[in-house]
Amino acid sequence: MARFADPQRLRRLIEGLDRFTATPGRGTTRLTYSAQFRQAADFLRAEMEAAGLGVREDEIGNVIGRLDGANPERAAVMVGSHFDSVPNGGRFDGPAGVVAGLEVAFLLRQHGLLPERPVEVIAMIEEEGTRFGGGLAASRILTGALDTARLGALPDDDGVTMAEAMTAYGLDPALAHRAVLEPGSLHAFLELHIEQGPVLEARGEDVGIVERIVGMAQVKATVRGQAGHAGTTPMNARRDALVGAVGALARLPDLARETGPDAVLTVGKLEVRPGGANVIPDLVTFTVDIRAPQEEAVRALVERTRSAIEAAGGNGLTVEIEEQLFVPPVPLSADLHATLSRHAAALGLKSRSMVSGAGHDAMIMAGFAPTGLVFVPSRGGISHAPEEWTDYEQLARGVDVLFAAVCELTLPPGLRP
Amino acid sequence: MARFADPQRLRRLIEGLDRFTATPGRGTTRLTYSAQFRQAADFLRAEMEAAGLGVREDEIGNVIGRLDGANPERAAVMVGSHFDSVPNGGRFDGPAGVVAGLEVAFLLRQHGLLPERPVEVIAMIEEEGTRFGGGLAASRILTGALDTARLGALPDDDGVTMAEAMTAYGLDPALAHRAVLEPGSLHAFLELHIEQGPVLEARGEDVGIVERIVGMAQVKATVRGQAGHAGTTPMNARRDALVGAVGALARLPDLARETGPDAVLTVGKLEVRPGGANVIPDLVTFTVDIRAPQEEAVRALVERTRSAIEAAGGNGLTVEIEEQLFVPPVPLSADLHATLSRHAAALGLKSRSMVSGAGHDAMIMAGFAPTGLVFVPSRGGISHAPEEWTDYEQLARGVDVLFAAVCELTLPPGLRP
Repeated sequence: MARFADPQRLRRLIEGLDRFTATPGRGTTRLTYSAQFRQAADFLRAEMEAAGLGVREDEIGNVIGRLDGANPERAAVMVGSHFDSVPNGGRFDGPAGVVAGLEVAFLLRQHGLLPERPVEVIAMIEEEGTRFGGGLAASRILTGALDTARLGALPDDDGVTMAEAMTAYGLDPALAHRAVLEPGSLHAFLELHIEQGPVLEARGEDVGIVERIVGMAQVKATVRGQAGHAGTTPMNARRDALVGAVGALARLPDLARETGPDAVLTVGKLEVRPGGANVIPDLVTFTVDIRAPQEEAVRALVERTRSAIEAAGGNGLTVEIEEQLFVPPVPLSADLHATLSRHAAALGLKSRSMVSGAGHDAMIMAGFAPTGLVFVPSRGGISHAPEEWTDYEQLARGVDVLFAAVCELTLPPGLRP
Repeated sequence: MARFADPQRLRRLIEGLDRFTATPGRGTTRLTYSAQFRQAADFLRAEMEAAGLGVREDEIGNVIGRLDGANPERAAVMVGSHFDSVPNGGRFDGPAGVVAGLEVAFLLRQHGLLPERPVEVIAMIEEEGTRFGGGLAASRILTGALDTARLGALPDDDGVTMAEAMTAYGLDPALAHRAVLEPGSLHAFLELHIEQGPVLEARGEDVGIVERIVGMAQVKATVRGQAGHAGTTPMNARRDALVGAVGALARLPDLARETGPDAVLTVGKLEVRPGGANVIPDLVTFTVDIRAPQEEAVRALVERTRSAIEAAGGNGLTVEIEEQLFVPPVPLSADLHATLSRHAAALGLKSRSMVSGAGHDAMIMAGFAPTGLVFVPSRGGISHAPEEWTDYEQLARGVDVLFAAVCELTLPPGLRP
């Protein structure tokens, strides 16, 4: 049982938010600045007020609840996550961290605690990038990494720019720059997120304390051969692009395994042309997504992938390899990692130090303030799907760790519960 | 040099026909019953008349030129091929055999020969199946294999049925059954076709004498796994449908090679779902096209393919295999094969006995009358593309073989040139 957080309160908040979906019965679809997004923002504002927070919607639509504490001028501890979603996604990806922040605020009030520095609960926009692409928009704007002058140049699928959508939502894009945080204004940023992977559940562990976000590379490969009639071209006279590509693809998973237990490699997109059942393929394209905790490991795996794909060339096939993306790993605060791990242990929870394979707002916030990230288990490792699930008791245990850390960061030892 | 046929006359006919394309500059596109098809039919009618043939358009639009010969009541020798095309195809696939028949008629007249039985030159509709699907429509109707009552149930991509298109073309679909040939009305059917493969060119051979049409099977495979986030799912916790499929795909080409030099196997169509670069695939579907000259070889290769694909199952993956098509090999007339081979040798040509890897009208006609099929070289083995090419001299050599065989079938020994 969780010591502090209330699973039923968390459940009410998650279910409350989940009513605001564009696809009822088919998962959570809540695009930034949509009608459902407005309803969710209003719901969160009301809940934050009920938790005793002073609430503002910032200039880009983040909903921020603030407890001034004893020294409002001091740098704040910010807790939260995002409340947009992927199309037909789950109810926990993002909202779990938002309601975790709300529950921390409830708990502070419930225990009659007056923090010595401000505590802010934040519900962020557009982390997924579902509407305007790119993703992590709120954290990139808050930290100055995304120039707000560019919001007029970020269109959604209907050609509506982010600036235009802001106007329709009731915001003034000309004021968006005011959302950028003052340097030094945050003492720490803490995020809780569902793991979106199977590790914690498989090992029976309660929380993952994230030490870093993986580095990532994306490679696009093109194999070209010669189309021909499937019936009239003998096997030894073929230049079959798919046969060449398969030779390379068959080697790739082992390259990841050989790189280390935390390295992963995924071919998620593959196209075969011309695509007739009786035509020898002349063109195969595929993507390779490569992730590992250490930059050297990412680079080494990219090189080995490149070699394996290049080996598919020759024998009448040509190969082209394009590195489309390289993002180095992002370490989170070692101090906060230690703090969160210590509290997990003190609460009697099974915890694990983890590398996050996915990007989160914490990844961006880490460049601005000491940042900690707590994972809670995902049932079956499933995410970005209506089946996404985390038991509320498990969520409450994650909130306990967050609450304990917020208390340590904002209260003198004697006053912590 | 060809002994009888005139490369320049063949060139004029091929180029004459090729003006009638819906995609000038982008290959030959001549759909059955289209405006270009009508122009081509009228052109062929005029050329047949110029060759001294009596011409009729039969009830389904085949253009048939007839030389009655000395005994019009006897069974005819029919020579020809089709004059429809694939989209953006070449100028030789089909027309080569039609103009070969025309050249045979020219040669008979040029040499002042009066055949002892009728000789018919036929230009057939809808062999490719480009417009109404299925293919081989003319030969299937002529031989009674396709019930003409069904023509109202064969729609093109715009929903226009074959019967409706016939009406618009000036034919009466209610009379289509009259196109069916009388049993015993053909003494032989001879077709010339481009090889559509690289064998003759690669070996420097002039003609291929086809002994049989391959047997063919088509298998559709589905591999199902579990989608997951490319970053958060460790390699050993994945159920990656593409990794499973690739394991099977890597083995398939060798299975064909092990079956024999004439066996071929092609994966031409492969789809990966959901198809996001950062999502582990949960569904891969692919087709396997299998061909071999002997029925047992086709069946054995299907079984080995099935086993290889089934081996991809397990480890959290499920596999489904569906046999979508099985067509046994069709032997052509051994007598005509011997006749054609003998004449090729007598003409000083390099010939090769071949198995046709593709279906042709000859495949259907073989069930109705003794049938022979002659291949001429395709440059680079390329077909169904604007680059499709056969040198006119090579085409003329193939026509020589055809002409010599027609003479043997229709003239007493002393009168053959």
